[in-house]
Amino acid sequence: MNKTSTFSALNPANEQVLEGQFPEHQQSDVDFAANAAAEVAKSFRQTSPAIRAQLLHSIADQLEQAREGIVERAHLESALPHARLNGELSRTTAQLKLFANVVESGLWQEAIFDTADPQRSPLPKPDIRRQNIALGPVAVFGASNFPLAFSTAGGDSASALAAGCPVVVKGHPAHPGTSEKVAECIAKALDEMSLPQAVFTLLQGTSHELGQSVVSHPKIKAVGFTGSIVGGRALYNIAQQRPEPIPFYGELGASNPVFILPQRMAQHSESLAEEYLLSMNMGCGQFCTKPAVVFIVDDNAGKQFLSSVRQGIQNQPGQIMLTEGIKQGYLQQSELRSREQGLTLTQSQPEQGVPAYLFETTSEQWRRNPQWQEEIFGPQSIIVKCESAEDMLELSQNLAGSLTATIQAEEADYALAATLVTELEEVSGRLVFNGWPTGVEVSYAMVHGGPYPASTMPASTSVGAEAIKRWLRPVAYQSMPDQLLPQALQQANPLNVRRTIDGQ
Amino acid sequence: MNKTSTFSALNPANEQVLEGQFPEHQQSDVDFAANAAAEVAKSFRQTSPAIRAQLLHSIADQLEQAREGIVERAHLESALPHARLNGELSRTTAQLKLFANVVESGLWQEAIFDTADPQRSPLPKPDIRRQNIALGPVAVFGASNFPLAFSTAGGDSASALAAGCPVVVKGHPAHPGTSEKVAECIAKALDEMSLPQAVFTLLQGTSHELGQSVVSHPKIKAVGFTGSIVGGRALYNIAQQRPEPIPFYGELGASNPVFILPQRMAQHSESLAEEYLLSMNMGCGQFCTKPAVVFIVDDNAGKQFLSSVRQGIQNQPGQIMLTEGIKQGYLQQSELRSREQGLTLTQSQPEQGVPAYLFETTSEQWRRNPQWQEEIFGPQSIIVKCESAEDMLELSQNLAGSLTATIQAEEADYALAATLVTELEEVSGRLVFNGWPTGVEVSYAMVHGGPYPASTMPASTSVGAEAIKRWLRPVAYQSMPDQLLPQALQQANPLNVRRTIDGQ
Repeated sequence: MNKTSTFSALNPANEQVLEGQFPEHQQSDVDFAANAAAEVAKSFRQTSPAIRAQLLHSIADQLEQAREGIVERAHLESALPHARLNGELSRTTAQLKLFANVVESGLWQEAIFDTADPQRSPLPKPDIRRQNIALGPVAVFGASNFPLAFSTAGGDSASALAAGCPVVVKGHPAHPGTSEKVAECIAKALDEMSLPQAVFTLLQGTSHELGQSVVSHPKIKAVGFTGSIVGGRALYNIAQQRPEPIPFYGELGASNPVFILPQRMAQHSESLAEEYLLSMNMGCGQFCTKPAVVFIVDDNAGKQFLSSVRQGIQNQPGQIMLTEGIKQGYLQQSELRSREQGLTLTQSQPEQGVPAYLFETTSEQWRRNPQWQEEIFGPQSIIVKCESAEDMLELSQNLAGSLTATIQAEEADYALAATLVTELEEVSGRLVFNGWPTGVEVSYAMVHGGPYPASTMPASTSVGAEAIKRWLRPVAYQSMPDQLLPQALQQANPLNVRRTIDGQ
Repeated sequence: MNKTSTFSALNPANEQVLEGQFPEHQQSDVDFAANAAAEVAKSFRQTSPAIRAQLLHSIADQLEQAREGIVERAHLESALPHARLNGELSRTTAQLKLFANVVESGLWQEAIFDTADPQRSPLPKPDIRRQNIALGPVAVFGASNFPLAFSTAGGDSASALAAGCPVVVKGHPAHPGTSEKVAECIAKALDEMSLPQAVFTLLQGTSHELGQSVVSHPKIKAVGFTGSIVGGRALYNIAQQRPEPIPFYGELGASNPVFILPQRMAQHSESLAEEYLLSMNMGCGQFCTKPAVVFIVDDNAGKQFLSSVRQGIQNQPGQIMLTEGIKQGYLQQSELRSREQGLTLTQSQPEQGVPAYLFETTSEQWRRNPQWQEEIFGPQSIIVKCESAEDMLELSQNLAGSLTATIQAEEADYALAATLVTELEEVSGRLVFNGWPTGVEVSYAMVHGGPYPASTMPASTSVGAEAIKRWLRPVAYQSMPDQLLPQALQQANPLNVRRTIDGQ
């Protein structure tokens, strides 16, 4: 391997260089990793579900053992608090364990059988059985805002390994030390299981070219990405322009609109204001599910809510953003937006860290400025004051794709809420009722996706059990003798997989 | 609507212009159709499964009533025999009825529930329920080679309507009269059901721009396509380069490799030769599942097979191809291939129609000429003579993506066959055992897809019950009160949908 240089990490809290030198991986490293992954792909996809479940548990155990060092390093590299990172590590191991359950359940194989009918006229009906198999080597991009749960051993890697796909991670350059420590845990787990190291490779580097060359590599068969529209769309385009285009599962941004209906507001304006401030400032507004726009009716309760939010935003303590680049982007975009006509701004004035920005506008101005739907990454949000509930409903018809949409309603609001449900289904992957969008449950029913740009593949989710389907494709076996069939489809059902037979 | 001109159909059997003038639809027609489809999309996706099932049955009934006229027109426009077209019409109505069953079964909704746990620490676990909903208006491209089953009311349209998506068909310019007659049946069925006509529109025309403008239209949310790599890839690229990229389900070609193992050949060389000739010449070789390459061992039985195939190919009756353009493409590509070194040619000499071409080569030459994997659309195939079964196995490792792969084996071949199964799973959507790839069952377990170029979306199938999933995306509902939930997720389960609860 040809490493021409190295790079270091910065502590965003004080701009100091952190210890540790990390390789700037080159094209030759990408070739090595992708080719090695392809070489073990066939045997890895044929390991038993029990083996892959054990691997996932073993990675979780290794992470637990290395918890202290990982959390400390992640704290230094991201400025996220220890409590949050400890929670995120627990979430990461919970994800690994969920996918261990998923792979053992066999539901992911979607075994479907057609019974043969040799007597059918005009032609006999063949025995056909289908199952899902692994796609092959998967590239995963680490996300800046979740150095653990959406990075090296995060949900994309866990679900891909569960599916039986080798993984090549392109680590995020903001937390290379964290990535390295986590990759060591995975290496130990593979070693413990006597599985080849080529099943998992971490590539590090600061150049855009590294990511581009991973996505372009002919042996890579799918990509998982969480990040910005600009970076994600560029990689998406590369994936689609390859001689063999590949599925690119990109989560690129969302405004996560919240609709507070009048009766709800009348009864809870104080607590809604508190919850909103908490949700938009959580993790310094660096959550993909941050509520970036809230629609309210400009009545007395709405005015009360606004007044509380304005007061609350001024008292927000400053927080440190993940990187200097993210901070500059946040400040510049907020500054530009604050100069636009039709918005009024209230902000905090922290001694340290970045200010939180609250914009207000009218429904009329909102209609004229569709660019305000574009997410600004950071503790910033817009409140849109509507003339009436009907005015608010009309705005729900012109939203861009989003990960979530939230409805706050009391029973007296349900007629309006029912209409909103139908509208918001059109544009979002998850509808939240009387809650806030931040906080994504890792569960069987979760959908973390939605129409573009929330996801480049709106039929998929990047969180929850169904995320495993991104790395699978179906294969049908026609008139195949039992002894040549894969185990999941054999008559005796040795893996005890749930089967759908003739549509039942 | 601004129709500037019209076009006519040609009878490929005699190059005569057929009666009937068809509109050359323009951008304004595309706008009108797509906008109208978008306007009814929300109400159409919310029709009950029973209503959509009834619509599909009603379309099937209308087609049955119009059978004679449709088949006659399709015969004149395609030169396909009446018996084949009558069979294809029956297949088309069977597809419509299958999707009626699928939509009523509720399996397509994939209802998944997480049970709430308010006591969970550190955070309560919310109630989350997910279902699939329709993507929105779908564009379908009619295929030249199946004027009924893969065209106006074919599998793409049937599955999209079942999912609850309005459909805009871009009819194939080779059979506009057939498309128009079928579209009339759909219009009658919509009328009978008192559903809006905007649920289905047929656009006709001969220009590439028409298809491009359909794929580019912002109201179109997914595309179904069956056709050539050149045309399909161009439209795929347009779909991916839109501001909002959309899923493009394209079936672009396949070589459908067949492996005949030594014991099988020793016992059945004669019948295998007959079956092969039948399969490759079926429908004048214009099937996407035509076996375009057959691997045999060059032993005595293999030589016997070859000799029978050579003799059989010379006696093939000539058949008429679908269009003059397809015929010219077939003759030119076959001519170019016949001049390449390393291939020997045997062909038929029919008085009418096009000749069938059989190429032979060695495994050594095959390795050196990867371009021979490219499909030539028409009655043409290559036999690759391998030195041994091991030589054959090695060739199975370097195949392009394909719709099918076939293994012909006796029990004594099973050790070799088991290795082949693992290799061929990697490159194909369907493995056929001791059969031939032509003839695609319309059933629950069918997979008609596979790695690129067989499909641009390898996780999908374009035939069979699972084809409905192409037009759906998941939505999760978090903590939603029962009365606001969609029916499929309500506690009382009024639609009687199968549910997965907490992973069980």
